[in-house]
Amino acid sequence: MQKIRSGTFAALLLGSIAFPLPLAAAPVDTSPIREAALQDNIAWDFTEGLTTEVGPRPAGTPQEARAREWAVAKLKALGFSNVRSEPYKMPVWVRGHDEARILSPFPQNLALAALGNSASTSANGIEGEVLYFPTLSDLLAAPDGSLKGKIAFVSHVMAATQDGSSYSHFGATRRQGPSIASKKGAAAILIRSIGTDNHRLPHSGVQMWADGVKPIPAAALSTVDADQLTRILARGQSVRLRLTLTSKMLKDQPSGNVIAELPGTDPTAGIILAACHIDSWDQGTGAIDDASGCGIITAAALHAAKAGPLRRTIRILMAGAEEVGGDGGRAYFAAHDGERHAVAMESDFGADRVWRVDFKLPAGHEALSDRIASALSPLGIAPSRLAAGGGSDIEPLVKAGVPVIDLQQDGTHYFDIHHTADDTLDKVNRAQLQQNVSAWAVTLFAIADAAESLAVK
Amino acid sequence: MQKIRSGTFAALLLGSIAFPLPLAAAPVDTSPIREAALQDNIAWDFTEGLTTEVGPRPAGTPQEARAREWAVAKLKALGFSNVRSEPYKMPVWVRGHDEARILSPFPQNLALAALGNSASTSANGIEGEVLYFPTLSDLLAAPDGSLKGKIAFVSHVMAATQDGSSYSHFGATRRQGPSIASKKGAAAILIRSIGTDNHRLPHSGVQMWADGVKPIPAAALSTVDADQLTRILARGQSVRLRLTLTSKMLKDQPSGNVIAELPGTDPTAGIILAACHIDSWDQGTGAIDDASGCGIITAAALHAAKAGPLRRTIRILMAGAEEVGGDGGRAYFAAHDGERHAVAMESDFGADRVWRVDFKLPAGHEALSDRIASALSPLGIAPSRLAAGGGSDIEPLVKAGVPVIDLQQDGTHYFDIHHTADDTLDKVNRAQLQQNVSAWAVTLFAIADAAESLAVK
Repeated sequence: MQKIRSGTFAALLLGSIAFPLPLAAAPVDTSPIREAALQDNIAWDFTEGLTTEVGPRPAGTPQEARAREWAVAKLKALGFSNVRSEPYKMPVWVRGHDEARILSPFPQNLALAALGNSASTSANGIEGEVLYFPTLSDLLAAPDGSLKGKIAFVSHVMAATQDGSSYSHFGATRRQGPSIASKKGAAAILIRSIGTDNHRLPHSGVQMWADGVKPIPAAALSTVDADQLTRILARGQSVRLRLTLTSKMLKDQPSGNVIAELPGTDPTAGIILAACHIDSWDQGTGAIDDASGCGIITAAALHAAKAGPLRRTIRILMAGAEEVGGDGGRAYFAAHDGERHAVAMESDFGADRVWRVDFKLPAGHEALSDRIASALSPLGIAPSRLAAGGGSDIEPLVKAGVPVIDLQQDGTHYFDIHHTADDTLDKVNRAQLQQNVSAWAVTLFAIADAAESLAVK
Repeated sequence: MQKIRSGTFAALLLGSIAFPLPLAAAPVDTSPIREAALQDNIAWDFTEGLTTEVGPRPAGTPQEARAREWAVAKLKALGFSNVRSEPYKMPVWVRGHDEARILSPFPQNLALAALGNSASTSANGIEGEVLYFPTLSDLLAAPDGSLKGKIAFVSHVMAATQDGSSYSHFGATRRQGPSIASKKGAAAILIRSIGTDNHRLPHSGVQMWADGVKPIPAAALSTVDADQLTRILARGQSVRLRLTLTSKMLKDQPSGNVIAELPGTDPTAGIILAACHIDSWDQGTGAIDDASGCGIITAAALHAAKAGPLRRTIRILMAGAEEVGGDGGRAYFAAHDGERHAVAMESDFGADRVWRVDFKLPAGHEALSDRIASALSPLGIAPSRLAAGGGSDIEPLVKAGVPVIDLQQDGTHYFDIHHTADDTLDKVNRAQLQQNVSAWAVTLFAIADAAESLAVK
């Protein structure tokens, strides 16, 4: 997942202006939908099926293609309309063999994973002295050229937060660290995993080389191994390390989005887009990132529609290639920008319970947000004064001004397993998953059923 | 660790016979030792140092040799006497590359680790159909020859227990499963890790081939991957798997024990042997198995001796090659059986707090066990009616009738990380480690100071 942080203050200002309600129809009681969705099995079956029958599904690979086929078949079987894949092509980085060995003073191996778009070493690896930087700021402060031939190591520790906001700050080490190290002449860079666990399972993730920067080998040590390397460096002796990261880049590989719909009765009322992503990182089976998100929106759409007929069409977008830069979200926008989107939503922050709802609706729609907040309150979900921002699959739509609602999931433990081999089905709590389905079902119903225009001025 | 379970009932009978106390000297107040040891830093420094500066130290390898050198230097620096290595030779199994890939119906890799003494496949691996057995009993019940050319998979789930007793029962799948599968004609065997976690880190461990049995490739899937394979098999389709486990056997490799002493004033009163093991499995740094045990006994001996001079010599045994069959414990017994051991004790069940003390002392020593129980009680440790059994490093001594005391550690979480890559320093809780040191210090002091004979009749 990648959260969009822009636009918060502007939207807060919009939200504070009171407009008269355009319509005053009595709201429908959503408690039957909420209660039925709390007993949902569809989201679990979807998550279990995709992670078991497909497993890991990296963007642009045959596994991701199998995931699209699997999802198309599943969505058709569940009764969705207009189910199809929408293909596009993309360059693909493929992991090879990842290995790091301390040669001196204390020979031992370290657990690590190459970051997306890392340069490849030869099969025999490279050797170099490790230069230690406690934080990204320390790396930034190093004089140009001072890293010449060295292996930079940034050990910045990430703290857990319920809203996941610390990812933006600490994730900079992964996103920017490799380019900074390369600019300063480093032969390679190792970072402490952007994660909050203490297991020997490194957190991978994408990073993009800044313009004009030469790609170098770049990898994340598990948090445990980063702490071990830090302790070894603290002994004060020169630390030499051999780093082997083999990988390859493939051009023009097939990827694609999966689309499915539950058609509404009023084609002029705008589409509700519910998004997740079908790809995953390569080490785990992508249970919380993001099979569960796809399961949640699929199940919730069906629960909402059962209470219909609904005014607005609910469209499911299972985007491809989210993890490597959001190719699927951009392809969707390019193909569907001309259509009217009433609201966009995304589920891509695990399977833990929803604890907060954020809105970014056109001014004058306070009655709708109040109705949604009331429907969510029995699930232990409170409305916030923060503006919704969406996630990377709907980012182009949000930037284009489409209204957005965020059902914020508890992220306290999300970064324990995010982008690791440990992102597997057993990490999904079924009761929490069902709470998500229920929250999504009442929200989708309330929007789909709303008599308001939801027109962006 | 390997617990000895024999002798419990015989010892309980002995313990129930009341003998007069040979001496009635007033016991020394142990509270200053207990309190000082609760502030101990030595055990942490030892554990941190060995795991950082040596890291993994498999039996019979150069890493284990480095561990011996490290421990000898450390014990000398801490003021121990007669510090030395006692070498012996042994055959050594060395892990190569471990990989498993489901070929059909749902292609994906599984995380696994070869078990000790596994046969090696070729570098290209072997392919076969997976035959599923929910428990070891199901494997046992399979007709001879029915596994011909198949890959047996036993998915028996282990439950956690505070006293670690479930390891004996569930561990049979690892210890006996490979030989049973081979006898029935299997091409290879996979077991669910003997562990209680849900991480993608397989639990390795030794298994010995039964007499006349042909070694086959044998490995443990992580608990998560075993559950994934079970779900895939539950779909009812034939599951084909490619298994690559390369390894080699080396003859006559050097291993050894490390010995150190704090000499007592009465050479006729018998030695107190405090044991741990210096080797570890290869994937982690052996923090809880058993660097912490070595740290605990080292620190505790020093705290006890500070209150001296003590009557009895405290001897530290850091055994080699415990993990692969107890070669170090047998070598110690062969070299030192002629000496008089008053009591033997072992710390090899992690770093969690001591919760129970078991005794197996000669009849008539109830006053001593009462004094020890009183000294331990403020630490939250209760005496049991079970006879102490020791562990594998002192097993030959215990079988020969040497009295033994067990300071039982809480094992509820021990098998979450036992024999995995996750056995690392961060899993050691410093306060719990200090409680161990305190419990050991007052116990060693009470025995070393005891006026009783502790002679085995």
